[in-house]
Amino acid sequence: MGFEFDREIAVRPGVQPGERYAVLSDQWRIGNGVHGGVLMALGAAGLAAELDGDGAHPDPIAFSAVFPTPSVPGEVIVRTEVLRAGVSLSQAQVRLLQSDGDGLAERMRAVALFGDLGKRAEPVLRSASPPLIASPDECVGSDGAIDFLAHSTLLDRMDIRLTQETAGWAQGTPSGNGRLDGWVRFADGREPDVLAVLWALDAMPPVAFDLGLYGWTPTLEFSAHLRAHPSPGWLQVELRTETVVGGLMEEDARIWDSTGRLVGQSRQLCGWRLRQRG
Amino acid sequence: MGFEFDREIAVRPGVQPGERYAVLSDQWRIGNGVHGGVLMALGAAGLAAELDGDGAHPDPIAFSAVFPTPSVPGEVIVRTEVLRAGVSLSQAQVRLLQSDGDGLAERMRAVALFGDLGKRAEPVLRSASPPLIASPDECVGSDGAIDFLAHSTLLDRMDIRLTQETAGWAQGTPSGNGRLDGWVRFADGREPDVLAVLWALDAMPPVAFDLGLYGWTPTLEFSAHLRAHPSPGWLQVELRTETVVGGLMEEDARIWDSTGRLVGQSRQLCGWRLRQRG
Repeated sequence: MGFEFDREIAVRPGVQPGERYAVLSDQWRIGNGVHGGVLMALGAAGLAAELDGDGAHPDPIAFSAVFPTPSVPGEVIVRTEVLRAGVSLSQAQVRLLQSDGDGLAERMRAVALFGDLGKRAEPVLRSASPPLIASPDECVGSDGAIDFLAHSTLLDRMDIRLTQETAGWAQGTPSGNGRLDGWVRFADGREPDVLAVLWALDAMPPVAFDLGLYGWTPTLEFSAHLRAHPSPGWLQVELRTETVVGGLMEEDARIWDSTGRLVGQSRQLCGWRLRQRG
Repeated sequence: MGFEFDREIAVRPGVQPGERYAVLSDQWRIGNGVHGGVLMALGAAGLAAELDGDGAHPDPIAFSAVFPTPSVPGEVIVRTEVLRAGVSLSQAQVRLLQSDGDGLAERMRAVALFGDLGKRAEPVLRSASPPLIASPDECVGSDGAIDFLAHSTLLDRMDIRLTQETAGWAQGTPSGNGRLDGWVRFADGREPDVLAVLWALDAMPPVAFDLGLYGWTPTLEFSAHLRAHPSPGWLQVELRTETVVGGLMEEDARIWDSTGRLVGQSRQLCGWRLRQRG
């Protein structure tokens, strides 16, 4: 039957040009909404299908999204628009729409750059190295310490590990450094690809937890670069934040594959509130 | 008569709802095209006008753009679309269009988050500090070392200073660190505001020069966060790059105002080619 992630981001042909349909399940929920990383991967999957006519530009290379209204499980329209189909790169837009009683409500709008990362593995002038952290087996698993999202179904879809140093928040002792280090992979054994990296950039617990900010930190804007096709195995993830002001903070994520190659990085703007742990 | 930057990003009412007009002068050129930072500031100015109905959301807080075709001096249509006008934040899109013989060509498309940064100065949980660098007077000015863009008009609009340590590329001895540190302000004395910070995030020489990559590094995608209203005076700018692979590289920029407050940060994806200095 295939893997859960592939089923979740599968698109089927629509009636209008540039329109496709998908179904958001109840299995990638965080709180009452659908996980933003799934929405972005779905949007990118729709664009990949649209730009796959000649097979030239299968990969998102840059993807920047805003989220006007919260998504819910159910039918979704994936509406794409190609702004320019170039020789080596294409620019495009994707929108996710859901019925909302009165009509269609827009859940996500993104602009994206597509190309072929398979042709961009070389030359390597320099590449950011991953921080040296404990192996997944030596890290804290999501079965124990990470129980804050027990009512979300998202955590069942993945295997998350955090270093002991950056998992203190789960016991109420955040480091205060604004940093999380760890590993992530799909629970059902699906190996990572570029769309999985886009998803994973948003899949770790909020870095805000490491500052003792345990409230909801909604993603207001998300911008990712995908730089290489990941090799099979764990993805190493690093989250950081430095500027936490006026109810806004950035969350910077970087992901390396099992060979230590940087495969993606992102910056999102999140909201936060001063609130004690509930 | 006002200041040059204000004239360049001035919009006048259009015929259609959400449509405004502007004129790109020949005075902010880099090569044959119009500087991308000017295009983004113009787009943000158009959105600010659109969202200014109740005066609630005057400031871009996040702004992510792609550039399907190169802009040229001349008339430009600024077409805005408000996706959601919220209580504290609004999501919107802006497009820049120019006549291109056959019809309208899209020069830039951006999604943006707007709000009121004046209400977001507090609380400050943490904020990135600027690197300690030499004062503008102790840095290298654009009148001497920076002569590589002598045919561009952009440089006449601003005063750029780089630290001695990161200006070596101008004498053919780049540090190889992938880093530029310096200062920027408008040449005509206009003080910075949020739109100026958006412009300035893209206004320094390419960080690629510090790696000895002296060729053209076109901006493929640009994503910025604006975090505070800047105080008057110089803007301190830091540029970095870490992953330079397969003809793509990121350029990370951070800007602090004269009080040392982080006012903006950005990441852009640029193209690069192995080429000797021309």
